[in-house]
Amino acid sequence: MTSEPTVEQIAAGEFVRVDGTALREQMARIFVALRVSEDHAATTADILVASDLRGVDTHGVVTGLRYMEQIETGLIDPTVTPHVVRESLGSAVVSNEGGLGVVGAHLAMRTAIEKARVTGIGHAGIVDGRHIGMVGYYPLMAVGQDMIGMAVTNANRSVRPARGADPRFGTNPIAFAAPAGEERPFVLDMATSTVASGKVRRAHALGLPIPRGWAVDGNGQPLETPPGARDTSWALTPIGESADGEGVNYKGYGLAVMVDILAGVLAGGGSSVDLDYGSNMAWFMAIDIGKMRPIEGFKADMDRLIRYFAETRPSDPSRPVILPGDPEADAFEYRSKVGVPLHRDTLATLRTRAQTLGTPLLV
Amino acid sequence: MTSEPTVEQIAAGEFVRVDGTALREQMARIFVALRVSEDHAATTADILVASDLRGVDTHGVVTGLRYMEQIETGLIDPTVTPHVVRESLGSAVVSNEGGLGVVGAHLAMRTAIEKARVTGIGHAGIVDGRHIGMVGYYPLMAVGQDMIGMAVTNANRSVRPARGADPRFGTNPIAFAAPAGEERPFVLDMATSTVASGKVRRAHALGLPIPRGWAVDGNGQPLETPPGARDTSWALTPIGESADGEGVNYKGYGLAVMVDILAGVLAGGGSSVDLDYGSNMAWFMAIDIGKMRPIEGFKADMDRLIRYFAETRPSDPSRPVILPGDPEADAFEYRSKVGVPLHRDTLATLRTRAQTLGTPLLV
Repeated sequence: MTSEPTVEQIAAGEFVRVDGTALREQMARIFVALRVSEDHAATTADILVASDLRGVDTHGVVTGLRYMEQIETGLIDPTVTPHVVRESLGSAVVSNEGGLGVVGAHLAMRTAIEKARVTGIGHAGIVDGRHIGMVGYYPLMAVGQDMIGMAVTNANRSVRPARGADPRFGTNPIAFAAPAGEERPFVLDMATSTVASGKVRRAHALGLPIPRGWAVDGNGQPLETPPGARDTSWALTPIGESADGEGVNYKGYGLAVMVDILAGVLAGGGSSVDLDYGSNMAWFMAIDIGKMRPIEGFKADMDRLIRYFAETRPSDPSRPVILPGDPEADAFEYRSKVGVPLHRDTLATLRTRAQTLGTPLLV
Repeated sequence: MTSEPTVEQIAAGEFVRVDGTALREQMARIFVALRVSEDHAATTADILVASDLRGVDTHGVVTGLRYMEQIETGLIDPTVTPHVVRESLGSAVVSNEGGLGVVGAHLAMRTAIEKARVTGIGHAGIVDGRHIGMVGYYPLMAVGQDMIGMAVTNANRSVRPARGADPRFGTNPIAFAAPAGEERPFVLDMATSTVASGKVRRAHALGLPIPRGWAVDGNGQPLETPPGARDTSWALTPIGESADGEGVNYKGYGLAVMVDILAGVLAGGGSSVDLDYGSNMAWFMAIDIGKMRPIEGFKADMDRLIRYFAETRPSDPSRPVILPGDPEADAFEYRSKVGVPLHRDTLATLRTRAQTLGTPLLV
């Protein structure tokens, strides 16, 4: 998911390195100019640029530009404030009111964390939600409080159930994170589809074939030529599907349904049956580790577990075993120093938007 | 996972149908004869026979016979009582004291449910745990209380991490269940490996090849000839691994690590680094749906979601789309009427054990 532009691409001016802090400030100023409150704009910019810094380029500035468009077209209302509409000691329902999805998601995760501090575990669901950005951001909020965090979100129809010929649910990602001591936190952030749509789009744009098992046509048969735009004539496959496209494996499908129930049915915001374009519901959980055992012992055991996996004898000595989340953590360390590589077209769009809105140019 | 013996196998006397209620009582009596309390014996027998009834034959009477052996060899202490050693409003650590794993697991799930009734969400982890049987049993306990349930457990090393050549963690299953209204509850019960070890064992016993992608040899290369006994010279693959065995997909591996953290590190019972043979730690969660929204609306939405998936246009018209858990629910309905098919050797072993212990013969 994470990849740096080549030296050639940088030299040719296709990509430009932009300082993360400046980028965050630039994004925040633009959202403020679009009538988002200072507070919400700062949260939104932080979540978006965290994604760019972690190398998840699909969910960073590119996604921010889409949010800006959606504010202009009225899909997102920039002026609303998400709030808790129902709660108990350990649970909450947050209404996002159709505002920026990341703002409601941030409140929901904060609420889950606050409740976990009291009861040991807390959870919160979203109604009237929108796209929440990089899902892995939210569990990392819990990690910062010495907690375990989890987040899931549902999405537009693009994936078929096992045995099915039509897309019926989204890439329904699952994110989970836990703190460690000397090692980096463990972070899992995965779609429950074999690959995200972006990989198929990229293969299409480059004129490359896709491996059997990634996607199927309208008859449920494996596609090797990547389709273009997202429509219902083809579908992604859920993870665990066999390469021959037989689709008998229920595991990725089952995980996607689990996500749909937690994100869409539990709080009642809407599941795959009735999710409109631009709507995404979500669910967040936090566990206070200290209520189960002293945090130092937990962190020491996490360090041991992480090292144990990293020290596995590799199949290919030139490719050591890594932990899920390592590529994103590596990207974060590197990009925090040298900057985020933005495609020149993306940067130009961002600058034009800033100038049009009369906000200072910071990148 | 579920399959009925053929008419020919029944006719040849290879399999015998046994009434589920009688089987439960027979199992309970044997455990009592092995010094398990009446209460714990009833719980143990219920969990084991629920597995046979749901068609999960690997975790029913066959597993019960193993527990009996483990009591005799001293691996399981039949006389201990699991108890809560640490708790907060919404969390608990249950010590299983090295007794029957299913008894401690049952207490932990009950505790999570009781806490969820107060706080909206509850969780419990196990220390000093043993094998907990069919993981899907525990979330179904929550469903019976109009709650969502989740359970995970770690296990002996048998699966390799992506890129790895050695087995480093167990099949680390995830189970999740949610109630519906007119439809059957949604139940997901899945190993995070491509297949369970049992499938490789069965292929070995039948002299059949296995598909590339199920298992790898000691160099991390795909196996097509199934290996025999479980040892460290080969490994299962995590779900999501590519069929060519390149093992670049981190998703099943990541889910297995998540399970290891929740089951093994959170309460401190032990993760894959230090899990001895015969030890299994576990984690349980319950969510009180009524604290998020009225249960009737939740159930009506679940019915709509389940029907929506079941009505997906199938790739092959002769194989309709089903929900994960449907095969097990079908088996439960069928076997509750006609009985559980036990292999004659399994039944003979059970009867011999009953007679040796001087308990009445009920099957």
